[in-house]
Amino acid sequence: KMLSRVLCTVLFMGALPSLAEVSQGHISVVLLGATGDLAKKYLWQGLFQLYMDQVSSGHSFTFHGAALTAQEPGQRLMFDVLKKLACPSDESPNRCAVLKDQFLKLSRYHQLKTAENYTVLNREIEMLLHQEGLKEAGRIFYFSVPPFAYTEIARHINSSCRPPPGAWLRVVLEKPFGHDLESAQQLATELRSFFREEEMYRVDHYLGKQAVAHILPFRDQNRQFLDPIWNRHHVERVEIVLKETVDAKGRTSFYEQYGVIRDVLQNHLTESLMFLTMELPANVSRAEEVLQCKLQAFQSLRRLEKTSAVLGQYQSYASQVQEELQKAQDYISTTPTFAGVLIHSDSLRWEGVPFLLTSGKALDERVGYVRVLFKNRAYCTQSETLRDAGHSQCKTKQIIFYIGHGALNSPAVLVSRNLFRPVMPEGSWSEAVAQSALHIFGQPLSDYYVYSPVRERDAYSILISNIYHGRKDFFITTENLLASWRFWTPLLESISHQPPRLYPGGVENQHLLDFEMVSGEVAFTVAEPVELLNPSRQMPSDYKTIQSKFRQSPLVSAWSEDLISQMASDIEKTASRTVAHSGQFHLALSGGSSPVVLFQRLARHHYTFPWKHTHIWLVDERCVPLTDTESNFFSLHSHLLQSVRVPYFNVHPMPVHLNQRLCVEEDRGTELYAKEIMALVANASFDLVLLGVGTDGHTASLFPHSETGLEGAQAVVLTESPVKPHQRMSLSLPLINRARQVFVLVLGKGKHDITTLLSRVGHQPRKWPVSGVSPSSGHLVWYVDYEALLG
Amino acid sequence: KMLSRVLCTVLFMGALPSLAEVSQGHISVVLLGATGDLAKKYLWQGLFQLYMDQVSSGHSFTFHGAALTAQEPGQRLMFDVLKKLACPSDESPNRCAVLKDQFLKLSRYHQLKTAENYTVLNREIEMLLHQEGLKEAGRIFYFSVPPFAYTEIARHINSSCRPPPGAWLRVVLEKPFGHDLESAQQLATELRSFFREEEMYRVDHYLGKQAVAHILPFRDQNRQFLDPIWNRHHVERVEIVLKETVDAKGRTSFYEQYGVIRDVLQNHLTESLMFLTMELPANVSRAEEVLQCKLQAFQSLRRLEKTSAVLGQYQSYASQVQEELQKAQDYISTTPTFAGVLIHSDSLRWEGVPFLLTSGKALDERVGYVRVLFKNRAYCTQSETLRDAGHSQCKTKQIIFYIGHGALNSPAVLVSRNLFRPVMPEGSWSEAVAQSALHIFGQPLSDYYVYSPVRERDAYSILISNIYHGRKDFFITTENLLASWRFWTPLLESISHQPPRLYPGGVENQHLLDFEMVSGEVAFTVAEPVELLNPSRQMPSDYKTIQSKFRQSPLVSAWSEDLISQMASDIEKTASRTVAHSGQFHLALSGGSSPVVLFQRLARHHYTFPWKHTHIWLVDERCVPLTDTESNFFSLHSHLLQSVRVPYFNVHPMPVHLNQRLCVEEDRGTELYAKEIMALVANASFDLVLLGVGTDGHTASLFPHSETGLEGAQAVVLTESPVKPHQRMSLSLPLINRARQVFVLVLGKGKHDITTLLSRVGHQPRKWPVSGVSPSSGHLVWYVDYEALLG
Repeated sequence: KMLSRVLCTVLFMGALPSLAEVSQGHISVVLLGATGDLAKKYLWQGLFQLYMDQVSSGHSFTFHGAALTAQEPGQRLMFDVLKKLACPSDESPNRCAVLKDQFLKLSRYHQLKTAENYTVLNREIEMLLHQEGLKEAGRIFYFSVPPFAYTEIARHINSSCRPPPGAWLRVVLEKPFGHDLESAQQLATELRSFFREEEMYRVDHYLGKQAVAHILPFRDQNRQFLDPIWNRHHVERVEIVLKETVDAKGRTSFYEQYGVIRDVLQNHLTESLMFLTMELPANVSRAEEVLQCKLQAFQSLRRLEKTSAVLGQYQSYASQVQEELQKAQDYISTTPTFAGVLIHSDSLRWEGVPFLLTSGKALDERVGYVRVLFKNRAYCTQSETLRDAGHSQCKTKQIIFYIGHGALNSPAVLVSRNLFRPVMPEGSWSEAVAQSALHIFGQPLSDYYVYSPVRERDAYSILISNIYHGRKDFFITTENLLASWRFWTPLLESISHQPPRLYPGGVENQHLLDFEMVSGEVAFTVAEPVELLNPSRQMPSDYKTIQSKFRQSPLVSAWSEDLISQMASDIEKTASRTVAHSGQFHLALSGGSSPVVLFQRLARHHYTFPWKHTHIWLVDERCVPLTDTESNFFSLHSHLLQSVRVPYFNVHPMPVHLNQRLCVEEDRGTELYAKEIMALVANASFDLVLLGVGTDGHTASLFPHSETGLEGAQAVVLTESPVKPHQRMSLSLPLINRARQVFVLVLGKGKHDITTLLSRVGHQPRKWPVSGVSPSSGHLVWYVDYEALLG
Repeated sequence: KMLSRVLCTVLFMGALPSLAEVSQGHISVVLLGATGDLAKKYLWQGLFQLYMDQVSSGHSFTFHGAALTAQEPGQRLMFDVLKKLACPSDESPNRCAVLKDQFLKLSRYHQLKTAENYTVLNREIEMLLHQEGLKEAGRIFYFSVPPFAYTEIARHINSSCRPPPGAWLRVVLEKPFGHDLESAQQLATELRSFFREEEMYRVDHYLGKQAVAHILPFRDQNRQFLDPIWNRHHVERVEIVLKETVDAKGRTSFYEQYGVIRDVLQNHLTESLMFLTMELPANVSRAEEVLQCKLQAFQSLRRLEKTSAVLGQYQSYASQVQEELQKAQDYISTTPTFAGVLIHSDSLRWEGVPFLLTSGKALDERVGYVRVLFKNRAYCTQSETLRDAGHSQCKTKQIIFYIGHGALNSPAVLVSRNLFRPVMPEGSWSEAVAQSALHIFGQPLSDYYVYSPVRERDAYSILISNIYHGRKDFFITTENLLASWRFWTPLLESISHQPPRLYPGGVENQHLLDFEMVSGEVAFTVAEPVELLNPSRQMPSDYKTIQSKFRQSPLVSAWSEDLISQMASDIEKTASRTVAHSGQFHLALSGGSSPVVLFQRLARHHYTFPWKHTHIWLVDERCVPLTDTESNFFSLHSHLLQSVRVPYFNVHPMPVHLNQRLCVEEDRGTELYAKEIMALVANASFDLVLLGVGTDGHTASLFPHSETGLEGAQAVVLTESPVKPHQRMSLSLPLINRARQVFVLVLGKGKHDITTLLSRVGHQPRKWPVSGVSPSSGHLVWYVDYEALLG
C-alpha cells in the first residue's frame, strides 16, 4: 500500500512523466542481497542512476531490495544504504534531490527466505500493477548472493515470480560461475532448467569498464587504419594486465579456492582478449553477431600447457590462510596470487603473436590495461638526436586501452601519434590535454593521441543500464562461459599441485616476477633466489650426462632434458659427417611420445642440420590415415617436418593407406616400402635408426611373440599391437640390424622395470623384441634417462 | 749502390738486428702509385708502421716507391711524403726518429713505365741481395693505381719481377674490382693469367677496421653466450650502416660510374654482413675455413629484387656532374648516392631476419656501425619507474660493432648489459669508462658493456701487417669477389634506369630517407614531396593494369611484372575467401616457365596466404621422376613449395612414377590421381586452376588432336606431347571445366601470334585445346601481358 501511494504521487508530479508517458509499462527491479557489500558499494547507486536516466523513458519503476534478514532490521539496514546514495556531479542538485526522494519512496525491502516469501512478493507486484492500471513491461532479478544460493532462488523465481506473458524476465548473475568446466556446466544445466538463455545476464563487470567496452567500437570506427595492421604481420605482442597492490587478507576463504587465474584471468582478462582477437562482425552493435565472432575466437586458441604459465604467491599469503582458515602450521597452499600466461591463437590473423595475460595481488602498483604493441619495421636514416620528435616512424607504435588507476588514474584510449589519429565518438570520448611530464610505456604522454571519457562512469551503472536496454553483448552467455572454462581448465588442472614462486610483495618484488618467452613457453627471467628455496629441491643443472655400458653397448644417461639435447646433437654430428662423406643421410624415426621432445629440440636448436640432404623414413606406423592425429607420421610432421626444410622427395611416410583402405595385405604396402628403401638406401643400410622401448619390451612395432618381423627375409612387415590401433606397419628386426647406427631412447619412471629387466636378460627377441636389436656391422647406443635407469 | 750502403749501415748498427737475426731473409716492398692520394694518406704510414713493428723480426726490408713520373721529380715528391711520416704515440720518440731515418734510407723511388723499367727494378733487387749475401724471402707489389692500369702492370711483374723459386710474391690490389659480375669475371680471368690465387691480396679496407675485424673473433670467443641466441628466433633485425656527410664533389667522374651500391654496399657492407651471418668455423684463425664458410653464406642469400632497395640522390649531385663531366643541362643522372637495401638469408639460422644495409653521402652525420638488435621477449611485472636500471630484461638488447666516427668517435664493441658480459681479448680491447650523458641507439651508454681498442690502429696499417703475415682471410678471394657480384648484379641491373628520390642533404633530409619494410620489400615511409619531383618523370604507379574482355571473358593486361603481381594477389584473395568459406582451398597449378615467376612472387610476397589450408594439385606432369629437374613438380617445389608451409598431406604430385616405372597404363596412375581428387575435392571442382597456353594452342598437357582428355568421362589422362619428353599426364578438359575459377596466364612476344589467333577463333578444342576451356559454372579470367597481346 505504501508503494502504491508513492507511485501515484510520483506519477502525478508535474516535472515527471504523465500517465501517457508511462505507456511503455512498468519495470520491477528486485535486488537479492540488497544489504551486501556489492549492493552497498555499487548496485544501489547503479539502480539510482538508472532511475535518474530513465525516469522520462516512458517506463515506471519499483525497486525491491531483498535479503534473508527479517523485515524490520533488513529494512533499516537497506534504507541506511539508500540514504547515502550520491548525486552525480553532472546532475543538478535540485533535480537529484527530488529524484532521490522519489527513488526512496519507490523502494522497499522484502525478506526473501521461504517459498511463501516469493509468492507474496509476486502478489504484491501484481496488485500494485492492477491498482495503478499499469501494463507490466518486465522484471529484473539481480542475484547479488553467494553462488550456493543460486539454485534455490532460481527455483522460487521460476515457480512463483515469473511475469505474465508479454512481459520479460531478466535475471542477473554475478560470478563465480563455477570453478572449472565441469562445475560450470553443472551450474549452467541447473540454471537452464529454470530460465531461458535470453533471460540470463551473467555479469563480468570488466565489460562495463569504459576502456574495455570501447575496444570493439574502436576497432569498428577505425577499420580504415586497423584493417592493414591488425594482424600477425604488424602486431609484435599484446599485454592484458591487471595489477593490484592489495592482497587477499580477509578474503582467503574465497581466494584459497579460486586463485588469481579463476578470479581474474578466466573472466576479465579473457573477455578483453576476445574483444581484441575476434573477427569484427559487420555490425558491432548486433549482440548476436558479436557473440558468434567471440565464440569463433575461442575456437582458435591454442591449448595451454603447464609451461604456458608462470605462477607466484606473495609470502605472507600462507600465514594469512593458516590464520583465517585455521589451518595447521605445516599447511602449504599452492594457490597462485600472481600469474603470467602466454596465449597463442592459431587463427590466420594471429598465428605466432604472443598474448600475455598477467595479474597479481601484492604488486608494486594498481593498474589495468590492454596494450597492443606493433612491430618496428622502419629504419630512420636521420640520427636520433636530429629526428623530428612528432611522428618518427622509428618510435614505438602502440595502442593502449587504459582501464584505470596507475599513472593516468582514469580510463583512456592512447594511440601512438606515428600510427594514426583515431576516430572517437565525440559525445562520449574527448581528447585529453597531455601532461608532458608523464611517461606511459616508455614514452612521454605527448607521443600519443589521448582520449578519455567525457563522463567517467562506474562499470555497474553501465551494466545496469545495459540490462535495462537488453544489450546481451555486454554479458556472458552460457556458451561463452563454457568456452572460456574449456580453455582454462586443462591449465588449472596441470598446475594444481605446482608450487608457485614466493614473492615478498610490493616494490620489494623487484625483478622476481619478470618473465620471458622461450620457444613458445614462459619462464621467470631471474633464477629463484636461494633464500626462498625449499632446501630439499635439487637443481637439475648440477647433473651432467654420464657414460658407461648397457647390454654391452655404450650407454648415455642424464636427466631427460639433458639426455635429449645430447642425443639431438649426436644425431646432428652423425648427419653432418654422413652427408660430408656420402652426400645424403638416411634417418629412420620411431613414433610414440618420447621422440616428440627430440623432434622439437631438433626443430628449434639445430640450425646447421643438413636437412636438405636428409631422407626421413619411418620405423613404424599405425594403420590410420597419415592425417589422423594418431599417425606417427602426423606427429613427426607437426613437431619436426613442418619447421625444417626437408625436400618433399626425401620424406618417406609408410604406405599404410592405399586404394582408400588401411594396411590391406594385397595392396602390398610393405613391399612398396621395402622397394623404396632398396632403391634409395645403399645396401638397405640406414645411416641411423632411432628406436624406443615399450614396457613390454617391444621396439618399433615389433611386439612380443610376433609372427612376423623378428626374423626372416622380409624387410617391412604388418604386425598386431596389443593396444589400439592394433594394426601396424614396421621395419623388421633384420632390416634394423643392417643399420650403420642405432640409437635407443628410453625415458621416464614408467620404463624403469623394463630397463632393469633388459639389463639382465640376453638375446631373446621373441620374448622382448628390443633384446634382438644388435646391428650386425653397425653401432648401438642406449640413451636412458635417470628416471628409467634408477627409478 | 746507395741502397746497398744504407742497408749495410742499418744492418751493423748496434741497436738493430745483426746479420744472424736477418736469417729470415729479405723482403722487397714495391708501392705502385707511390705519390698518389692513398699512398700519401695511408700507405706509406702503414709501411713505416710495418717497418717499426718488424724491424727485429729477422726479416730485412727495402721499400720501392714507383710511379709514372720521371725519376727526378718523382723522387722529390715521394720524399716530401716520407718526411712527413708520423711517429705513433706509443713509440718512444728517440727510437722512432732513428727508425724513421733508417726507413727513409731503405726507401727509393723508381719510374715504372716501360717494360724495361721493370727489368731494371728486378735487376736492382737481385744485385742488392747478391751484394749483401741475403736470402730473398719475398716481394710485395702494392697496386695503388687506377684499375685500367692493372693488366699492364701485372704483365710486367709476372714477366720481369717474379722472385726466384723459394721466395713468395704477393700482389696487393685495390678496388674497384669490376663494375658488375661480367667485368669482375673478366678482370679476374686476366689477373689469373699472371698470378696464382694465393699470390693475390684484394684489399677491402673494412676488413682492417678494428670493429669489423673483431666480429669473427668476438663470435668465437663468446660462443657460450651467442650459441643460443645468434639465430632467427632471437635476432629481430640487423643494421649495417655507413653514413657520410661529405658528398661526391670532385669525384663525380668516378662516382657517376659506380654509385653508392658499388662503392660501399657490394664490398664493405657485404663483407660485414658475411662475418655476421656465416657459420662459425671450428677454427676462426684458419683462413681456408673462414673463406669456405663465407662462401656458403653467400649461397644462402635470397635474390634481390628491384623492390629490395630504396634509392636516393642528393639534390646538388646533378649539377656537380654537369659541371665536372661537362654534361648538357638536361642530362639526368640516375646514379644513387643513397641506398637502403633489405637482405634476407634463407639459411635455417637466419630465415626471416631482415638485414638492412644502408649508406649514403650528404647525410646528417658521419658514422659506421653494425648493429644486431635482439627480440624483446620479456614482460617486466614491476612498473618502469621502479625497475632496477641495471639489468632489466625489458630493456633493448643489442650488440653493436661500432666502426667509427659518430657520437663515440672511436671503434668500439658494445653489448647491452642485460645480454652478457662479453669475453674480450685483454691485450687488444679494454673496457671503456662510460660517459653516462651519451646515448647510443636510444639507450644511455651506461646500459652497455663498452670496449674499445687498447691501441687505435688505422685499417691500412692493419692490412699491411696482414699482408706481411700472409693472413689471406683479411682479403677478398676471387671466389668471394665473384659471389658478391653475383649477388648484387641483378639488383644493379634492375635499378639502372630507376630515378632515385632526391634529397636536400644534411640535416635538411629530415624523414625523407627513412624507409620501412612492407611484406618483404622496402619503401620510403614518407611520400615524395611534390616540390622535389622532376615534372618530366613519370611514376611507375601511373601505369595500371587494364581490364577488358578476351574471348568473351574478363581480360587483365599489363607489363609482365605488374601482371604477375596482380595475378598473385588475385590468387591470394580467392584463397582467403575460399578458406574463410569452406576451410580449404584446392589449387591446381601448371608446369612450364611462365608460372615460375608467379611461384616466386607467391613465395616471397604473400605472407598472409593461407598455405596451411591450401591443397596443391598439378594440372599436368612430364613422365619423369619427380626429382628430375624436368619435372613440373620439381620446379614447383624449388620455386614455391620449399619456401612456404603447405602441410605434407596437402601436396599432391601426379603419380607418374609407380612401381619403378614411368606412366605405364596398367599402373593406373591416372585412376589413382582421379580417385585422390574425388576423395578430397568436393564435387571434383577445383577452387582455382591455373593454365598456360602453348604456341600451338595447347593447354595443360592437352595437345592439338589429342585422342584423350579433350572430351569424355576420364578425369586424368595420359597424353603425347610433340616435344620431349613425349609422355605426359594431364587433367582432362572436362575436369578443368568443372573448376570454380580458371586463370590463363600468357606471357611474352612469342605468344603474340597464338594470342591474336585465339582472339578470333571460336570453340575448337581439337584444333586449339585451350579454346575448349570454358568452366561450366565457374569463372574464366585471361591474364595476358602487353607483349603477348600487342606483339
